[in-house]
Amino acid sequence: MLTLHHLGRSQSERIVWLCEELGLDYELKRYERRKDNRLAPPEYKALHPMGTAPIITDGDLVLGESGAIAEYLIETHGNGRLAVKRGQPGFTDYLYWFHFANGTLQPVVLQVRYLERADPSEKNAVLQAAKERFNLVFSTVEKRLGEAPYLAGKELTAADIMIVFSLTTMRLFKPYDLSPWPNILAYLQRIGARPAYQRAMQKADPDMPPVLEAKPPV
Amino acid sequence: MLTLHHLGRSQSERIVWLCEELGLDYELKRYERRKDNRLAPPEYKALHPMGTAPIITDGDLVLGESGAIAEYLIETHGNGRLAVKRGQPGFTDYLYWFHFANGTLQPVVLQVRYLERADPSEKNAVLQAAKERFNLVFSTVEKRLGEAPYLAGKELTAADIMIVFSLTTMRLFKPYDLSPWPNILAYLQRIGARPAYQRAMQKADPDMPPVLEAKPPV
Repeated sequence: MLTLHHLGRSQSERIVWLCEELGLDYELKRYERRKDNRLAPPEYKALHPMGTAPIITDGDLVLGESGAIAEYLIETHGNGRLAVKRGQPGFTDYLYWFHFANGTLQPVVLQVRYLERADPSEKNAVLQAAKERFNLVFSTVEKRLGEAPYLAGKELTAADIMIVFSLTTMRLFKPYDLSPWPNILAYLQRIGARPAYQRAMQKADPDMPPVLEAKPPV
Repeated sequence: MLTLHHLGRSQSERIVWLCEELGLDYELKRYERRKDNRLAPPEYKALHPMGTAPIITDGDLVLGESGAIAEYLIETHGNGRLAVKRGQPGFTDYLYWFHFANGTLQPVVLQVRYLERADPSEKNAVLQAAKERFNLVFSTVEKRLGEAPYLAGKELTAADIMIVFSLTTMRLFKPYDLSPWPNILAYLQRIGARPAYQRAMQKADPDMPPVLEAKPPV
């Protein structure tokens, strides 16, 4: 039995969404964050050596890392759907944006967050450089979403499922305004209109409205 | 013609190594870092919107992101070698460690580096939390390399090629000592003994000895 261990308001929402888009038969186990520090509770950390969300179990298998879980589910339970294979249109765009999500976008958002927490002053040159990089990253996504409705082209793929968390729920942790990026905002409206995304967000975090507007939640 | 644009002392060494392990026919174009700030020179940044290493060109294609390039080369030029497919032993280990490299390991090394540059004092609670996470990440790699000689099992795969940069050349930028992790050190000696790794490092950075010892370069 495939079980998805979802930590509330975390990257594991990607996998809930993926399961809903693929129409998989899965059990969702939901875990609340600790009230004192917003981290994963001990029973979540005990599931896997790294203790980070997402985690799935499938028979004897315990697997972490969003990218690994997405590839695993698509290959073993999803009949290859939502991936783009060699020879299909959008193959290299798919590869680029799938890996860009956790290789470039999410790290730069986290860097700005951590550096602001360490020292938010304007004389912090490391923070200023990180903010410049943040703007370059978002400009690059903005440009891509002016060329195509989804990252790999005309249809939603797992590359979109990998990237959307950093543009939405991540803004609970690092509030930032998407007003400078109209293509990204229009993209989030397309995502928010998808029945599978709506079902996923309702199951993943029933008390949280999806974070799809320009202004971050207060 | 496949051209690999290698920025000296950067993550693009992964792709030089991958090309050598696969025995590909490729052209290596090497770019020196700027002397004033150690960043990529303007002609490197001009190759791709993000301007980050690695970048390949292949006919009309311009592709960035290590993970995307590795998957692309293995699929289109490497006949699937160095990847582990569904049904083969080590499939889920391969997926996990391949994605762990840039999804978890490299970001935590960068976080510690940036936070130390912003404020290295011991009262910096954000830095202390990042250091704890750094130790958890390295302990997890150490444990894995006590179970198997390579990350996916008995043989070298692209998961190893993704991870080794953060354990070696990255220590020029964020010096850290690997003495607490004997399995990782023994692994680096196995890597350093590979003819393809030796050829790659000689081509990528002929003036730099591979960073394989416990102590970081001074």
